[in-house]
Amino acid sequence: MKLAIDSSQSSGSIALHDKGKLVYSAYFDLRVTHSETLMPAIDNAIKLSGVGPEALSEILVCVGPGSFTGLRIGLATAKGIAFARKIPVSSYNSLQMAAYPCTIAGKKILSVIDAKMKEIYVALYRPDLSLIENPQVIAPIDLLDWDLTDTIITGSGAPIVSEVLKDSAIKQNVAPSYFHTLKAELLFAISDLIPPTHYDAEALADLEPYYLRASTAQIKKKNSHNL
Amino acid sequence: MKLAIDSSQSSGSIALHDKGKLVYSAYFDLRVTHSETLMPAIDNAIKLSGVGPEALSEILVCVGPGSFTGLRIGLATAKGIAFARKIPVSSYNSLQMAAYPCTIAGKKILSVIDAKMKEIYVALYRPDLSLIENPQVIAPIDLLDWDLTDTIITGSGAPIVSEVLKDSAIKQNVAPSYFHTLKAELLFAISDLIPPTHYDAEALADLEPYYLRASTAQIKKKNSHNL
Repeated sequence: MKLAIDSSQSSGSIALHDKGKLVYSAYFDLRVTHSETLMPAIDNAIKLSGVGPEALSEILVCVGPGSFTGLRIGLATAKGIAFARKIPVSSYNSLQMAAYPCTIAGKKILSVIDAKMKEIYVALYRPDLSLIENPQVIAPIDLLDWDLTDTIITGSGAPIVSEVLKDSAIKQNVAPSYFHTLKAELLFAISDLIPPTHYDAEALADLEPYYLRASTAQIKKKNSHNL
Repeated sequence: MKLAIDSSQSSGSIALHDKGKLVYSAYFDLRVTHSETLMPAIDNAIKLSGVGPEALSEILVCVGPGSFTGLRIGLATAKGIAFARKIPVSSYNSLQMAAYPCTIAGKKILSVIDAKMKEIYVALYRPDLSLIENPQVIAPIDLLDWDLTDTIITGSGAPIVSEVLKDSAIKQNVAPSYFHTLKAELLFAISDLIPPTHYDAEALADLEPYYLRASTAQIKKKNSHNL
């Protein structure tokens, strides 16, 4: 049985896969922190499945980009279970997750996640999730220089992009909001398409959040050193 | 806050929407019956949201086709809460739900659900979920007479259809299994696209399962009468 975890955004989710099939998933975007919801949700899922933690053979986790604290909680949880059970962890980034539900359309996919502070995390994919433009953090207006012809725009940052592009010559194809939601079960689906970044039980220390930019605290610290 | 319920298949799921946004969802495909999982899941969802049942303003429910017992449990649960709270219930069928994740592709969608007993529930949709072929129960081989050019095949019955079509001249485009999963939150997404069948608190008695065919028990009873 495989466990998937995503706490990279304000929302969080977990999912269980058994014999290639989704058997359980839970998603929450409530005013409760990941530290309060994540482990109880995993515990509940395992109990409902009628098995114990010893049934877990692999953990899939989203490494970001996204919320700094959320990512730390998700990765710590994944590492903790993997360490205790001596099982491997596989990871994907949140832009791959946001892109996946649009792969069915067979077009280029602009995957966008709101990075706050007037920036977006963004990557451009082919329908097989191979990269056209690497994940990066940019100002939305910078997208005017990208080739977005015949491209589906998706992810939590899609409305921001839509607003920026509305006065441009680019004909927009924004996915409905259903397609923007990041869910842990997407990690299983992506693993059928592309190999994950893999960490065996000995390499867990190498599993780090994928921040794409320094946190506000890190920027402040750096700036204060430069004074 | 709106509650969505699907127990039309062996899997079951619930979801909560607040101010147009998914805030909670749970999905289970375990060896536990809907009668054991559905109400506790709804209770847990409402509690986690920090509100009470009085926050619910509408219920969306899947009416089938699917599992006879599952449908009865789902509809009874929806009616019970709606009756107690005097709120309306809206419904969609399971073939619309299975089709929705493929609407992003802009092609015709063949939505197929395994009806057991060597039959399938099937309907053919345009990308806006308008009907080309009405929901019906057929033998998979009957699809050889349908125009399935440039059509995405999806739903739990997609592998059955794929097997039947493999020796035909039809070029197949079967959605990956991620897209087949029926989830209650799809009910919210569909309601942005097409109006549901609506039952106000006084019309709840009209809300019936959408079976498409008689149950095995009903067929046996009818046959025994004809002896």
